[in-house]
Amino acid sequence: MDFRSDNVAGAAPDILQAVIDANSGTATSYGADPYSARVEQRLSEIFEKPVKAFAVMTGTACNALALSALTPAYGAVLCHEEAHIHLDECGAPELFTGGAKLVPIAGAHGKLTSEGVRQVLEQTLTGDPHRVQPAALSLTQATEAGTCYRPAEIAALAEIARGRQMKMHMDGARFANAVAHLGVAPAEITWKAGVDVLSFGATKNGALGAEVVVFFDAALAEMFAVRRKRGGQLVSKMRFVSAQLEAYLKGERWLDLARHANAMAARIADGLQRLPQAALLHPVEANEVFIQLPPKVLAGLRAAGFNFYDWTDAAPGTIRLVLAFNTDPADVDAFVTAATQLAAAAA
Amino acid sequence: MDFRSDNVAGAAPDILQAVIDANSGTATSYGADPYSARVEQRLSEIFEKPVKAFAVMTGTACNALALSALTPAYGAVLCHEEAHIHLDECGAPELFTGGAKLVPIAGAHGKLTSEGVRQVLEQTLTGDPHRVQPAALSLTQATEAGTCYRPAEIAALAEIARGRQMKMHMDGARFANAVAHLGVAPAEITWKAGVDVLSFGATKNGALGAEVVVFFDAALAEMFAVRRKRGGQLVSKMRFVSAQLEAYLKGERWLDLARHANAMAARIADGLQRLPQAALLHPVEANEVFIQLPPKVLAGLRAAGFNFYDWTDAAPGTIRLVLAFNTDPADVDAFVTAATQLAAAAA
Amino acid sequence: MDFRSDNVAGAAPDILQAVIDANSGTATSYGADPYSARVEQRLSEIFEKPVKAFAVMTGTACNALALSALTPAYGAVLCHEEAHIHLDECGAPELFTGGAKLVPIAGAHGKLTSEGVRQVLEQTLTGDPHRVQPAALSLTQATEAGTCYRPAEIAALAEIARGRQMKMHMDGARFANAVAHLGVAPAEITWKAGVDVLSFGATKNGALGAEVVVFFDAALAEMFAVRRKRGGQLVSKMRFVSAQLEAYLKGERWLDLARHANAMAARIADGLQRLPQAALLHPVEANEVFIQLPPKVLAGLRAAGFNFYDWTDAAPGTIRLVLAFNTDPADVDAFVTAATQLAAAAA
Amino acid sequence: MDFRSDNVAGAAPDILQAVIDANSGTATSYGADPYSARVEQRLSEIFEKPVKAFAVMTGTACNALALSALTPAYGAVLCHEEAHIHLDECGAPELFTGGAKLVPIAGAHGKLTSEGVRQVLEQTLTGDPHRVQPAALSLTQATEAGTCYRPAEIAALAEIARGRQMKMHMDGARFANAVAHLGVAPAEITWKAGVDVLSFGATKNGALGAEVVVFFDAALAEMFAVRRKRGGQLVSKMRFVSAQLEAYLKGERWLDLARHANAMAARIADGLQRLPQAALLHPVEANEVFIQLPPKVLAGLRAAGFNFYDWTDAAPGTIRLVLAFNTDPADVDAFVTAATQLAAAAA
Repeated sequence: MDFRSDNVAGAAPDILQAVIDANSGTATSYGADPYSARVEQRLSEIFEKPVKAFAVMTGTACNALALSALTPAYGAVLCHEEAHIHLDECGAPELFTGGAKLVPIAGAHGKLTSEGVRQVLEQTLTGDPHRVQPAALSLTQATEAGTCYRPAEIAALAEIARGRQMKMHMDGARFANAVAHLGVAPAEITWKAGVDVLSFGATKNGALGAEVVVFFDAALAEMFAVRRKRGGQLVSKMRFVSAQLEAYLKGERWLDLARHANAMAARIADGLQRLPQAALLHPVEANEVFIQLPPKVLAGLRAAGFNFYDWTDAAPGTIRLVLAFNTDPADVDAFVTAATQLAAAAA
Repeated sequence: MDFRSDNVAGAAPDILQAVIDANSGTATSYGADPYSARVEQRLSEIFEKPVKAFAVMTGTACNALALSALTPAYGAVLCHEEAHIHLDECGAPELFTGGAKLVPIAGAHGKLTSEGVRQVLEQTLTGDPHRVQPAALSLTQATEAGTCYRPAEIAALAEIARGRQMKMHMDGARFANAVAHLGVAPAEITWKAGVDVLSFGATKNGALGAEVVVFFDAALAEMFAVRRKRGGQLVSKMRFVSAQLEAYLKGERWLDLARHANAMAARIADGLQRLPQAALLHPVEANEVFIQLPPKVLAGLRAAGFNFYDWTDAAPGTIRLVLAFNTDPADVDAFVTAATQLAAAAA
Repeated sequence: MDFRSDNVAGAAPDILQAVIDANSGTATSYGADPYSARVEQRLSEIFEKPVKAFAVMTGTACNALALSALTPAYGAVLCHEEAHIHLDECGAPELFTGGAKLVPIAGAHGKLTSEGVRQVLEQTLTGDPHRVQPAALSLTQATEAGTCYRPAEIAALAEIARGRQMKMHMDGARFANAVAHLGVAPAEITWKAGVDVLSFGATKNGALGAEVVVFFDAALAEMFAVRRKRGGQLVSKMRFVSAQLEAYLKGERWLDLARHANAMAARIADGLQRLPQAALLHPVEANEVFIQLPPKVLAGLRAAGFNFYDWTDAAPGTIRLVLAFNTDPADVDAFVTAATQLAAAAA
Repeated sequence: MDFRSDNVAGAAPDILQAVIDANSGTATSYGADPYSARVEQRLSEIFEKPVKAFAVMTGTACNALALSALTPAYGAVLCHEEAHIHLDECGAPELFTGGAKLVPIAGAHGKLTSEGVRQVLEQTLTGDPHRVQPAALSLTQATEAGTCYRPAEIAALAEIARGRQMKMHMDGARFANAVAHLGVAPAEITWKAGVDVLSFGATKNGALGAEVVVFFDAALAEMFAVRRKRGGQLVSKMRFVSAQLEAYLKGERWLDLARHANAMAARIADGLQRLPQAALLHPVEANEVFIQLPPKVLAGLRAAGFNFYDWTDAAPGTIRLVLAFNTDPADVDAFVTAATQLAAAAA
């Protein structure tokens, strides 16, 4: 039973089936295929606005390429200090933007605050030619802490950004989980709140490997086909990527997958926080649970074959549990039961 | 009937089946899965030497990342003037290497010659600090002209490269076609001839999307895991990529697929060159045919539904035909028959 | 007697004096000093148009930074195959532009031709996303071959450039020599002919070290202050650089210096081409002479203490002679006399 | 009376005289002149070790180029959060390194602490391929806070760096001020304490414009001539730069200039801190004073014609005073007297 990451899960059967079905006849390569066209059309429906959509293969490329369309090399990208783009992409944004500077900002529960952003803009990124120039603000939805920005929070950040002619990027590796949790229309937490570009993930939520950069402003997308090619992300047999996205976005499939993962996270969190020494690090709003448990409980869980990561950025004994689109409720219950027994034995 | 590119073809059934089979249970993400380990092991067998192997998603990334391990930003990469890395990757090598300079060199039938390389090294890239520093030599096997370097040709180029401490890269987007044509051991046209790194393609030859960077010198691979991540090519659910490579490399499967494509190219070339005004631009050694045909014949073929590209770099009336691992011989014969009839009617 | 380069010369006395005079009191640093303001004003007079001017320290930086304002990282810069930016700046344009590709084009006597440029644009840089995107055309005035573009030649190239939304850059390391030779208003061979940005050199023509990027289109200059800082070219005590430029541009001083150098080149060329086996490689229009002389003559000149470079790109026995703003006519005559005697002895 | 920066000062007379004297005859360009050779030799004496020295034009280039020799593009450069390379060079280090990440670390009085560095290395830069790789540690001597690292402090940081195979860089824009304050041999706070490369500044301390990258490890300098050219810092008439450095480094001239600036800083600090509401932000160890004064005093000083910067990173009312190699003690006394009178009047 493996709670390490949503990436250890495989693919949803219908998404895999779409790949199988796509293997028929010839198709124009490099994205000029009907699958890709339909994905763009479907995303325009979902977001209630004509969008420009570019499928890519990895979340890292999705973010780094999106940012490269928003910032010059001398620009600054403001983000949370725990943002994936800052900490966990090995400098890919720096590579794809030609050396823009990511400016990390602290904030509780993985969220940027207006105050934090304003302080950096006023004290450091003053526009002086000796300083990098503020160009973009990137927020993660759902955040790296498993929390979700409300529409008003995003709009407040976007207003600050617009005041300095900055663009807004959203890292939506877990976008579906956020929409599912908030129960809002996708437009409400993206372009209606001021987001210019969304890195819309599918891999963590049931695809084999497919992400898509969604531009709400066509002007920003103008040369993105060129950027994608140059960035090594223009897949030749693109139909196999776009077919995944098409299946993922069909009806509410993407949301249903996320709802399941979120429900599993709520279920495991509910069970665990009843334990006497358990302490949740962050509110559980998406499919991740950060929780502190006694060392003996953790050791016992591992001995029993449960697989999960220590979260070294927090207090000792804190772990991260990630629940997936296909997590079996029985596995969740087994984890909670085992933890409860171990806690009782340790008491 | 579509002869535009090997990328318009779908996937070989057994390779697709391997993807389906890989969708079972959880697997460690980011390449630390057993599929990836087996691919490295199998490549070591194929090349008769322990290699380091890194799967990536596109041929462009495969080449650009491989080159980034061979050249500093102030380096020069010597290549044929028609090389894919120079002409058709939109500057991806420049991006991934931090701005190294690709130095195009002319040569008949898509091949670099020792004389051409030596001339550039002696007249231009003298080592002077005002000039970029020669760092790597990249050759394409099979070439962009559908021809193949012989082992001795590669060894001669490698000797020149070594004399200036340059590394040797091989763009093997159609490596299988070259091995199939030459009937040599893979080692003979790679490390035994002086090649340090191979971009080993599978996508054009039956995979959905899978390429692999193969290092014959482990020291060069030392930080490549980091480069791959930074380059946006570390796929999270890597098992779905490595499973393709595993199926592709099983036994002689990769060679059999290439043998078919090569045979189809020979068959179509044989048929077409009997036409009175036909002129082959290059010898046909792999799965591509560059041939000049009368305008009326070309117009007639297109009217009949045959799909292929004009080759604008050559004389008017020159087209490129690409034959695939799954090209139906009946389609080839239909093309030849139609062309023959059209040529007779035009005469 | 040293004819190796215009860089082996020192500084003109009045330019040095301006530096001495500038060393008085405090001055706001980083270019916000009155010297810099006056340079911009004087350049606006010289070019009969308000310009934006940014002093930098080296010709390499002047070119590379100017190009960085004209091309995105995925852009192509078309230039002559012997262009300094392509051959002799060690990839600085690639560094400062984030990896744009320089596309070398052949042309007699160091000049780009409309035909050569058009061919590249039509056959290679078609706008396809697989190809780098044409962004700028750079020409050198006077050229690396010591020749000068006429206004109509520049205008013809600019018309092609505009047809593809490309910007025009002029490497004017020897701009003064070209203006002096052509006897035109500076505006005639720059913005009136379609040039957007000029790298205006002073170092080769009598400054200690001072170049200036001149923008004829203020919109292109918008973030150039930031680029200059990021490029390490925002000198803190800028007054010492701008004071040089101010003295250089005073009245016709810059042209007089160039007229002298040009006259010396004409004088040495006149003398040498009377020798029986002498062959000029290019017309002598600025301050450089490329000439083939018999080996015995060259050996004799060197033995007599004359210092000059072999020009290895041309036939054996070809040398380059560079004449400076302060070359002594007696040295020129001594060279010619010695060569004449050596040629006679060898006959 | 101008206390804004050491860059508003002009040049020391003997350094200017050296430039004047260098303007005689021809000299080989691009650094192959005798002045440059003598500078390298003199630096080897000063540091009691053969060094490799490369003159450049600006402090920004000096730092950014030095770092480019120490870190790959996927590397991290650890530095103080107020480091000039991080805050005030507009991303030049990112440009010249190809996108390496600067990792800011807090520390009192502008100094990195072993604890702060260790924490980042242990918690964030773990060596994981998802993270940038620790490559260099950069410290500023004297610091941006006007304080100085002791030899043991540097050695302790270097030991941590060596434990992770990181290189040590020192930004010595005010190196002379640090040596003057500490009274140590230059070797003691550089290579003997573990520093690999020093950006040795002269411009702030009396040169017109001259900095020099000093390598204590020749292997690291191997391709630096190429990097300098590519970076636009290979000045053609280098003798005019090296002549400045030669005069600067003659005997104890560089230290005497710094001693004066330091003494002026001590003098102004001594005078000001006697005022009732004055509060020094940092110990005064070099030529900078950060001090909080009452608003009325500051307003009065400005009204009286004193020129200085507000220090917005600190509490309101905090200013920075920079004293120069040529600050007149009478100006210092005038400032103190005026402040004292204003403070008395305000009381």
